[in-house]
Amino acid sequence: MVRTSSHAALLAAIATLPFTATMATATPQQGSGVAWDIVEGLTTEIGPRIAGSDAEARARAWAESKLKALGFSNVKIEPFRTNAWQRGPEHARLTAPYPQPLAITALGFSVPTPAGGLKAEMVYFPTLAALEAVPDGSLKGKIAFVDHAMRRTQDGSGYGPYGNVRRKGPSIASQKGAAGIVIRSAGTDSNRDPHTGSTVWAKGVTPIPAGAVSNPDADLIARIAERQAAGKAGPMQIDMTLLGKPFPSAPSGNVVAELPGRDPSLPIVLAACHLDSWDLGTGAIDDASGCGIITAAALAAQKGGKPLRTIRVLWSGNEEMGMGDGGGAHYAEVHGKEPHAVAMESDFGADRVWQVKNNFAPADKALADKIDAALWPMGIVPHRGPVEGGADVSAIIRQQNLAVVDLGQDGTHYFDLHHTPDDTLDKVDPAALQQNVDAWTKVFQVIANEPGKIAKGVNGED
Amino acid sequence: MVRTSSHAALLAAIATLPFTATMATATPQQGSGVAWDIVEGLTTEIGPRIAGSDAEARARAWAESKLKALGFSNVKIEPFRTNAWQRGPEHARLTAPYPQPLAITALGFSVPTPAGGLKAEMVYFPTLAALEAVPDGSLKGKIAFVDHAMRRTQDGSGYGPYGNVRRKGPSIASQKGAAGIVIRSAGTDSNRDPHTGSTVWAKGVTPIPAGAVSNPDADLIARIAERQAAGKAGPMQIDMTLLGKPFPSAPSGNVVAELPGRDPSLPIVLAACHLDSWDLGTGAIDDASGCGIITAAALAAQKGGKPLRTIRVLWSGNEEMGMGDGGGAHYAEVHGKEPHAVAMESDFGADRVWQVKNNFAPADKALADKIDAALWPMGIVPHRGPVEGGADVSAIIRQQNLAVVDLGQDGTHYFDLHHTPDDTLDKVDPAALQQNVDAWTKVFQVIANEPGKIAKGVNGED
Repeated sequence: MVRTSSHAALLAAIATLPFTATMATATPQQGSGVAWDIVEGLTTEIGPRIAGSDAEARARAWAESKLKALGFSNVKIEPFRTNAWQRGPEHARLTAPYPQPLAITALGFSVPTPAGGLKAEMVYFPTLAALEAVPDGSLKGKIAFVDHAMRRTQDGSGYGPYGNVRRKGPSIASQKGAAGIVIRSAGTDSNRDPHTGSTVWAKGVTPIPAGAVSNPDADLIARIAERQAAGKAGPMQIDMTLLGKPFPSAPSGNVVAELPGRDPSLPIVLAACHLDSWDLGTGAIDDASGCGIITAAALAAQKGGKPLRTIRVLWSGNEEMGMGDGGGAHYAEVHGKEPHAVAMESDFGADRVWQVKNNFAPADKALADKIDAALWPMGIVPHRGPVEGGADVSAIIRQQNLAVVDLGQDGTHYFDLHHTPDDTLDKVDPAALQQNVDAWTKVFQVIANEPGKIAKGVNGED
Repeated sequence: MVRTSSHAALLAAIATLPFTATMATATPQQGSGVAWDIVEGLTTEIGPRIAGSDAEARARAWAESKLKALGFSNVKIEPFRTNAWQRGPEHARLTAPYPQPLAITALGFSVPTPAGGLKAEMVYFPTLAALEAVPDGSLKGKIAFVDHAMRRTQDGSGYGPYGNVRRKGPSIASQKGAAGIVIRSAGTDSNRDPHTGSTVWAKGVTPIPAGAVSNPDADLIARIAERQAAGKAGPMQIDMTLLGKPFPSAPSGNVVAELPGRDPSLPIVLAACHLDSWDLGTGAIDDASGCGIITAAALAAQKGGKPLRTIRVLWSGNEEMGMGDGGGAHYAEVHGKEPHAVAMESDFGADRVWQVKNNFAPADKALADKIDAALWPMGIVPHRGPVEGGADVSAIIRQQNLAVVDLGQDGTHYFDLHHTPDDTLDKVDPAALQQNVDAWTKVFQVIANEPGKIAKGVNGED
């Protein structure tokens, strides 16, 4: 609509509003404190920082300077070279049966289409299983479209199975002979902002161009497929241009920093986040928030007196495209011989912590009880399932068979934003961010003051 | 995060889901009925249909065929030539003090930047009034950024004053000597999807490139401006490419159709919507929904027996860029001599009707009371303020001094989607759409059966 009535009096009133009242969507509750400063600073002064980029290098320098200013010791940038991928121009449209543009983005490790676009028939598969069911070679010259039904869950657990459409779908499509693949984004929002993320090429498979469309675009494709199935529309034709390409041996690096404990001979407590982000958004929830949370909590844990053990923070490089070759692997290479007690990671946004898990040995039940008791007053409940750890600590956990504590965050809204342009500062609720810091602080206060050995249970999983 | 646990059992369960259970965001409550069919059909089979485009022409053919199939008489495409504008490639980034990409879109009637981009210092203004306050010529070589504070309101009334940043801001910036202007989108969402819309060049003003950034990008710019004001950051530099350009004398057209009344000598009831849409979304709420609502209601009003008066629907061309030269003006030219009784428009999305207004003469109080009484049971309240009419009926209203009935819709969420890529079918709630149809049906049943003259009150406003 065009509504042109002038509302002169209201306009005049608006004109007199002071500066701070005029920011339409500035976070209503302004944040403060160390965690907020880190998230605000990284998103404002650096922004997107995909692994291998100049921006990721600037982020490392920013992190080093910030951690020093906050009073951390042994602040170091630990460079490494890694597997990465660089986005190029990207766009797509249906050319038949109904010409329509599509909101598309390439998946990490997609190979490029021809510069002038890849034009082909697009075949609809309602699920990954449906794609798997067709004979090898049967999609020659065609583009596969794979739909699915990711739903929001409080613990984010839908990302495992539905994310497989992104992780495995492209390899399966290639095995079927497809010239390319388009998937419904692994996301729970309804914006026209598709979700990127890495795909994993299975051994021996020829990489093909691979993209994701937004949920509303996938809905459109599904509606057209229904018309096709009912004989009311002809085949879909797509013209897609995805010029992103793999970028092997890209420069990346970890940033590590410590708050030394009273007894340097005791194995350390390791807390990780990742500094790199996908390139579409500014990495506010994934994962500047994680870096803000662990760093603010490590500092806050000093307030009642310096803890017994050293707390080390790892702001990892190239988590998103690391695939076993990123910051976590490099950390284990460099620090694998140093004794660690426990490893933890914050990499699930800034929503509230609601559950705590550990994989301690039965002998450490008293320690687990202390953690649970510290968190109960915050309404955080103990859960006894397998722990997750995180991509940046999994190598050192494996190498040293480490104990893990997971602070499980509310993931209801995480996949609305994850790997999209919408991952920006305004999505971080400062109160929820601070609740994370408070929970991590309590855990640090317990485990960094534990004098005895902290062992992983034989049945613990990571 | 990368969460790789495989959840094999869940995956297996998903693989067996039937087709219809696998569409992640397909409207949970599937729509049905004439209004839904129109919105679903236009958005699926046509999609974006900016005035002057081939898609708008295909939409006219689609409309003609649909209205004939629905049983309308005198279905006609009435072509005209109009003022329009064509989008080109567009992108922008801050190059200083912090290099970051910006989510930007050109405003309608922007002139193009150089193909290689316009690079300039960007100066922050918290309000349109602050921009107006600087001396003419003082922004020579610079780009103005205008922030503002649009808030969501139930009646959408914020669009008048805040929309002026888009309508008038570019002309004011040009008067100040600016080489270009960027505004905060006139929108209430926090997606990285900026809102387009037409700007209006004031007489004698030199058009300049004009774009809008999304709310999160405007938040970023405001945070940088705060650092700048505090002496913590240098000036902002932007590199923006907006290649859209005016497209004078573009082909457009109206589609008109009638359901003849029992007494063809009586002045007709005119109900309008617009068929064109902005190019970024698929025009589901703006304004396929309006066309669905008026058309379904005109048909439903026949069910209790053919009404006395003819109901004519106008699916207007080029509402969005018409600026007094679009479908509404052309309709008044072609049909200005035919007697009209009342004009109405539906062009505010698909959310529920909550108020009714009219500008009837005091002598028609009984008719107004009948309409109010018909709507009370639906919880729709009479309101006595000035009526709006709508852009597609304003010319005929002015020309014939027509009576108007407004059915006011809930606008709380309208400006989350308005003029963005997110204006897609999934945003239409079929139940709310049907509530609109029901309200319009009741109004048609009253006014199309009114035998006497229906006059505009002397104090009525349109």
